[in-house]
Amino acid sequence: MAAINLDAIVTHIAHDLANRSDRGKVADYIPELAGINPNQFGIAIIDYDGNVHAAGDADVPFSIQSISKVFTLTLALGIVGDRLWRRVGREPSGNPFNSIVQLERERGVPRNPFINAGAIAVTDVLVTGHQPREALGQILRFIQFLADDPTITIDKAVAESEKRTGFRNTALANYMKSFGVVENDVDFTLGVYFHHCAIAMSCRQLAMAGRYLAHSGRHPATDLSVVSAERARRINALMLTCGHYDGSGEFAYRVGLPGKSGVGGGIIAIAPGKASIAVWAPGLDRSGNSHLGRIALEMLTRSTGWSIFGT
Amino acid sequence: MAAINLDAIVTHIAHDLANRSDRGKVADYIPELAGINPNQFGIAIIDYDGNVHAAGDADVPFSIQSISKVFTLTLALGIVGDRLWRRVGREPSGNPFNSIVQLERERGVPRNPFINAGAIAVTDVLVTGHQPREALGQILRFIQFLADDPTITIDKAVAESEKRTGFRNTALANYMKSFGVVENDVDFTLGVYFHHCAIAMSCRQLAMAGRYLAHSGRHPATDLSVVSAERARRINALMLTCGHYDGSGEFAYRVGLPGKSGVGGGIIAIAPGKASIAVWAPGLDRSGNSHLGRIALEMLTRSTGWSIFGT
Amino acid sequence: MAAINLDAIVTHIAHDLANRSDRGKVADYIPELAGINPNQFGIAIIDYDGNVHAAGDADVPFSIQSISKVFTLTLALGIVGDRLWRRVGREPSGNPFNSIVQLERERGVPRNPFINAGAIAVTDVLVTGHQPREALGQILRFIQFLADDPTITIDKAVAESEKRTGFRNTALANYMKSFGVVENDVDFTLGVYFHHCAIAMSCRQLAMAGRYLAHSGRHPATDLSVVSAERARRINALMLTCGHYDGSGEFAYRVGLPGKSGVGGGIIAIAPGKASIAVWAPGLDRSGNSHLGRIALEMLTRSTGWSIFGT
Amino acid sequence: MAAINLDAIVTHIAHDLANRSDRGKVADYIPELAGINPNQFGIAIIDYDGNVHAAGDADVPFSIQSISKVFTLTLALGIVGDRLWRRVGREPSGNPFNSIVQLERERGVPRNPFINAGAIAVTDVLVTGHQPREALGQILRFIQFLADDPTITIDKAVAESEKRTGFRNTALANYMKSFGVVENDVDFTLGVYFHHCAIAMSCRQLAMAGRYLAHSGRHPATDLSVVSAERARRINALMLTCGHYDGSGEFAYRVGLPGKSGVGGGIIAIAPGKASIAVWAPGLDRSGNSHLGRIALEMLTRSTGWSIFGT
Repeated sequence: MAAINLDAIVTHIAHDLANRSDRGKVADYIPELAGINPNQFGIAIIDYDGNVHAAGDADVPFSIQSISKVFTLTLALGIVGDRLWRRVGREPSGNPFNSIVQLERERGVPRNPFINAGAIAVTDVLVTGHQPREALGQILRFIQFLADDPTITIDKAVAESEKRTGFRNTALANYMKSFGVVENDVDFTLGVYFHHCAIAMSCRQLAMAGRYLAHSGRHPATDLSVVSAERARRINALMLTCGHYDGSGEFAYRVGLPGKSGVGGGIIAIAPGKASIAVWAPGLDRSGNSHLGRIALEMLTRSTGWSIFGT
Repeated sequence: MAAINLDAIVTHIAHDLANRSDRGKVADYIPELAGINPNQFGIAIIDYDGNVHAAGDADVPFSIQSISKVFTLTLALGIVGDRLWRRVGREPSGNPFNSIVQLERERGVPRNPFINAGAIAVTDVLVTGHQPREALGQILRFIQFLADDPTITIDKAVAESEKRTGFRNTALANYMKSFGVVENDVDFTLGVYFHHCAIAMSCRQLAMAGRYLAHSGRHPATDLSVVSAERARRINALMLTCGHYDGSGEFAYRVGLPGKSGVGGGIIAIAPGKASIAVWAPGLDRSGNSHLGRIALEMLTRSTGWSIFGT
Repeated sequence: MAAINLDAIVTHIAHDLANRSDRGKVADYIPELAGINPNQFGIAIIDYDGNVHAAGDADVPFSIQSISKVFTLTLALGIVGDRLWRRVGREPSGNPFNSIVQLERERGVPRNPFINAGAIAVTDVLVTGHQPREALGQILRFIQFLADDPTITIDKAVAESEKRTGFRNTALANYMKSFGVVENDVDFTLGVYFHHCAIAMSCRQLAMAGRYLAHSGRHPATDLSVVSAERARRINALMLTCGHYDGSGEFAYRVGLPGKSGVGGGIIAIAPGKASIAVWAPGLDRSGNSHLGRIALEMLTRSTGWSIFGT
Repeated sequence: MAAINLDAIVTHIAHDLANRSDRGKVADYIPELAGINPNQFGIAIIDYDGNVHAAGDADVPFSIQSISKVFTLTLALGIVGDRLWRRVGREPSGNPFNSIVQLERERGVPRNPFINAGAIAVTDVLVTGHQPREALGQILRFIQFLADDPTITIDKAVAESEKRTGFRNTALANYMKSFGVVENDVDFTLGVYFHHCAIAMSCRQLAMAGRYLAHSGRHPATDLSVVSAERARRINALMLTCGHYDGSGEFAYRVGLPGKSGVGGGIIAIAPGKASIAVWAPGLDRSGNSHLGRIALEMLTRSTGWSIFGT
């Protein structure tokens, strides 16, 4: 492992991708995100010893969107434990990220915590017993703690933009509410959901926040246990099977690491026992995952041999 | 790693499971399989150095059924390379193993090579340019080679039983034929499919046959390259995301290893760089995967720390 | 035809059904409707000459629910004409009344104006350019005019009850809004929708209101043209193919008249050129249609030979 | 009604349609049908008194295809009565004619006897207890009897062509067989199915064969009762709701008569108590129904006022 020069690798990747013309398509369904410059690219790796290896726009904050679902899942499991699984499944969906079809067939229980419906159900767990503002504060502080960075904030313009236009998510939430899977006021739960999706982080901050998943559940800076080692493995497993919507199989096939994407163009990926990684490129592929982000991670696992599926 | 006593672990697992009363339900849709004694259990591990650690009914042959799909996929990739992916996808299906719904939505292209439809499409590739008997001989000899064991045979009674009753598979094959995804005579392709599913192997033989996937694609006995290291990783990734039908997420979550199940009650699992593992218990869970087999593997990864998702 | 004694027929039907024990199940998903006494039954026929033949609880008002969709469709066609069909289809859905699956497959365009999604889209047309209160007033006055009865009112308790609990309808409306099929504020459109479903009418009033569909589109009391004869035929055709949700085929098969049911237990049926008919019995069958109401109409068409499918 | 000049009407329709350039698309999935000249058009009406009014290519035989399903349904109801409905439903499908999706959801029971799956299940009833050749002979003789024409034959080239290429129908039949809905050897049932679909008839012959449905179930030439008056009405109702696949609603809306189409371009339509009608134009619309055939019938009901939905 010592022989891997991560600084050279990330520099090479950033340089290589700068010249690509096939950059995917910036998400346009959240108006506030539609204007992002598609030519940006960032990558940051925190290795096991805590060294940061970054290149490109690694310090530019972007909207983490669905990547926040990893952190809300972690929080919700801490609060209600395995009772969470009464409200959300653990299987890949075989459908696009915002599909409602499966909910009808399976009585309002979403297939996994990483599709929109599942993440709304998880958020609902965090809202129970709290004012929305409190629930949101708890999520934000948890992410700030994970990243060792109190400057991380929510981009309110993005949250408001999604709130005004998020009709499909509103449909999903009401649909689950009709089956009792969402328990709180739909507006409360969706308000918290839209806001935690609108958290803005850089690749560096995101990679920092993901360290506990590479360290068997421990927060390396404080050595506190964020989750048990078993739970960390299980969250990684869920990211591997469900973290890229209906492109999860493809990501596992090409990259070979647990990961979670967001429509802001970010991806967090975990090399267990080795590193926490974040990449960002705003253009998306047809499944709604960062096009160049996935290619960057594919280059990275080729160079490092970090695939969990063998050397 | 040296401290792990695999012999003790497999003995303990076999002993523990012998007393379980919740053994799942033996598959009854293939008449010839319906009469299997559900109280059997076997486990075999081939570690990286080639040592065998076995317990229970590890030398009793059983019908490998869908586990054969790992070997036919490997063969087909060797023959047509990535052109295979024009005919079959790489995503989890989100549906039961014999579902036909997705085929209609996606113009006859099955979601992955491990659901029935996908495996039939892969078999069709192996039939092209051959008589069915030749294609079947090639598959059998490949598995014998992988397992270093020329005694492995096909259980003709099982093959005939499935041929007589396999109406859903016949429906799937004809459906794909209507879209040109199956190219050969449906009876030829299905004949080969039913027969390779009817190959009988013991846990020991199966674990032997899986070694190349734990050894970066190399056959350890001969050091021949069965597939490239990259392809071995990718087959492992497909097993992780799609190897247990609509229970693949659950298997990844609980066991944390790439694996492939069959309705005969067998499961092959791969700990990359560490071991090839086979378990067998005839009773199935609701998703059609061996109930005790999965539990055995969960106990194994807990004891060994072999999960690919972290220690 | 002159020999048909309608008074005797309706008396016989009411008497016969009074003794039935299989009365279906009162809808419980709108709390305010769940407490209705299931032993009520009413029937009213307005023949072509305007004579009323009624029996049972023909003057007890009940919640017309989805029967209102016939009148809102008529109104909306009057306002936007065939442009309406850009937003809603004309085919049976093959799915339950509140299904959302088809909307995803067909980009938010509901299959017909009589399933919930379709009726919400039609209501949205009536809301455009108006305050909700105005739109609702227009619908109510239209029904009062059709029935020659200014005393017809909205049951506000039912409307409020559905508004508080109508999460699936809220999901449908938001889903269509995400595709632009609903144009107005979802709360406005749903408010009007819930209120027009909560209009309370007796069988007598409902049969009066339906006369124009039996009279080639003319209002017999005033001889005003409500719709053209062609449009009256077409509304009848839509009722025949789509008026009983996923039990429309069964209703056509058994009754043989265009009709529209509501979960309040009412059904309006049209014998073109002969009569307008309303029945009411609160218990529903599995498709959500009045169980005894359908049986009453089956008895009626047997006695009268009024089936549109032959004598 | 006496004033309707049917000869003038059919002549006018044939003349008007001769000049149309939008003729739809000839079915190409049965190779033998793909070469039909799309410029043909025929119409024949048998009025209640037995007079024939014909125009265009009314005496050119064409492949009746799915129109045969009306006659096989009539025969099967005669043999097993309402027990038929254990194997096939009576609801519109909301899906294309050859869809298999619904079968999976509803355990192999097709939605109605006029989609392919349903008609195969009905054919299977006719095959039970017979050699395929006998069953087919019975169907053919029944149609010859209905049409008073012993010269009607099966186009063997069409039957063979469909047998060679009918993979989707083979899929449907095997799928139903897996649920026990098809009871006989799949090849037997499909052989009979493909052959009765390949019966060739002219508009004149087809209109003759349909008379019993306009005459309350009686065969006017012999005054024999083919089916009871109630059953005739019910078959008409099924044609209205399900006779044009996923275009049934549209046909009811525009034409307003019970009808059944075939992919050969024919349509039979029934004006109960008035006439039996057949039209033929080979080009199909998107739902698989004759494009000009439907327009011809729409012109006819406008001119005659024969809609069952009012004058």
